[in-house]
Amino acid sequence: MKYYLREGLLPPGRSTAATQAEYDEAHVARLRLIRALTDVGRLSLAAVHAVLQALDAGPDQLAQAVGTAHELLGPAPRDDEAPPTRALAAVAELGWRVDPSSQALRQLDAALRAAEDVGLPPDEQRLRTYAGAALDVARLDIAGLPRADTAPAADVVAYVVLGTVLYEPVLLALRRLAQQHLYSDVEGPPAGP
Amino acid sequence: MKYYLREGLLPPGRSTAATQAEYDEAHVARLRLIRALTDVGRLSLAAVHAVLQALDAGPDQLAQAVGTAHELLGPAPRDDEAPPTRALAAVAELGWRVDPSSQALRQLDAALRAAEDVGLPPDEQRLRTYAGAALDVARLDIAGLPRADTAPAADVVAYVVLGTVLYEPVLLALRRLAQQHLYSDVEGPPAGP
Repeated sequence: MKYYLREGLLPPGRSTAATQAEYDEAHVARLRLIRALTDVGRLSLAAVHAVLQALDAGPDQLAQAVGTAHELLGPAPRDDEAPPTRALAAVAELGWRVDPSSQALRQLDAALRAAEDVGLPPDEQRLRTYAGAALDVARLDIAGLPRADTAPAADVVAYVVLGTVLYEPVLLALRRLAQQHLYSDVEGPPAGP
Repeated sequence: MKYYLREGLLPPGRSTAATQAEYDEAHVARLRLIRALTDVGRLSLAAVHAVLQALDAGPDQLAQAVGTAHELLGPAPRDDEAPPTRALAAVAELGWRVDPSSQALRQLDAALRAAEDVGLPPDEQRLRTYAGAALDVARLDIAGLPRADTAPAADVVAYVVLGTVLYEPVLLALRRLAQQHLYSDVEGPPAGP
């Protein structure tokens, strides 16, 4: 906690004596948030800083703050210059409307390129299945989104940032467990995957 | 490439002169694989080493090799000692049969605990939607699995390891893009999420 105070991630408490300070509910909540972002989200302290700034931003910087937060949540592909042609083709095929300059598009492109490089490019059926699963999840994500015109901006940003950081590991862990569950039907007792 | 040779990740080529060596197709394929594991999979060199060993293992070490590879693909939760009670309850609720000592179960537990800590625990509907999406994807993953009794062991391990490393970013990127696509219907032109 002292470390976070020193790094400016937590506001100072109310001094009650020369070496003591009081911390309120808000401090405890923020501490939990920082822990979640670093432990589960694997964010660097610099990224946590930016996310907290986004959370504290006023309503008029909302869209920008959410965009910044999403950018930071990486992973950032190394090769940023090549146009994401594979990803653009994939979303066109799916009929999705997305921001052509978004980080997620570059992430998708890097993953598709890498799969191609090692001789395992996803075929159309795989892409459609993954896209369908992603849509099911995203539909629920969007349905839970606090309305920007009534909810405090911090709530909307918190929902987007935490929804991304916290629920991505849930989805990935469930995929691995689903593989185990299905694999145990094929092969007997669960072994590896 | 020289770096990977020095680190023992690539076997030496056939010397053709004092300062030259020939590299064949297998070298190029392995180099692509290392790149994919480090760039997209974000694996450490130590983890790449272990994955390559798993790929080169004989058929009788297959299950163990796959298990080892999956363990390395992290992210490893920090607090390994607490029993994953939340995750165990979740898979029991879903009726899935999984290995109670698996890394994926601990990952799920850490993510569920973190979501709870910041006041955003997934409700039953969210868990079921995510699990349904994970099952759709896993069913396709399993269907494509080379049969262990006919395919070379390296192919099976390659499929599991690469399927995890390469397709997880595909799934996550598609989820973010699906959010953008759906969000653009709600809010007009795509902005942040």
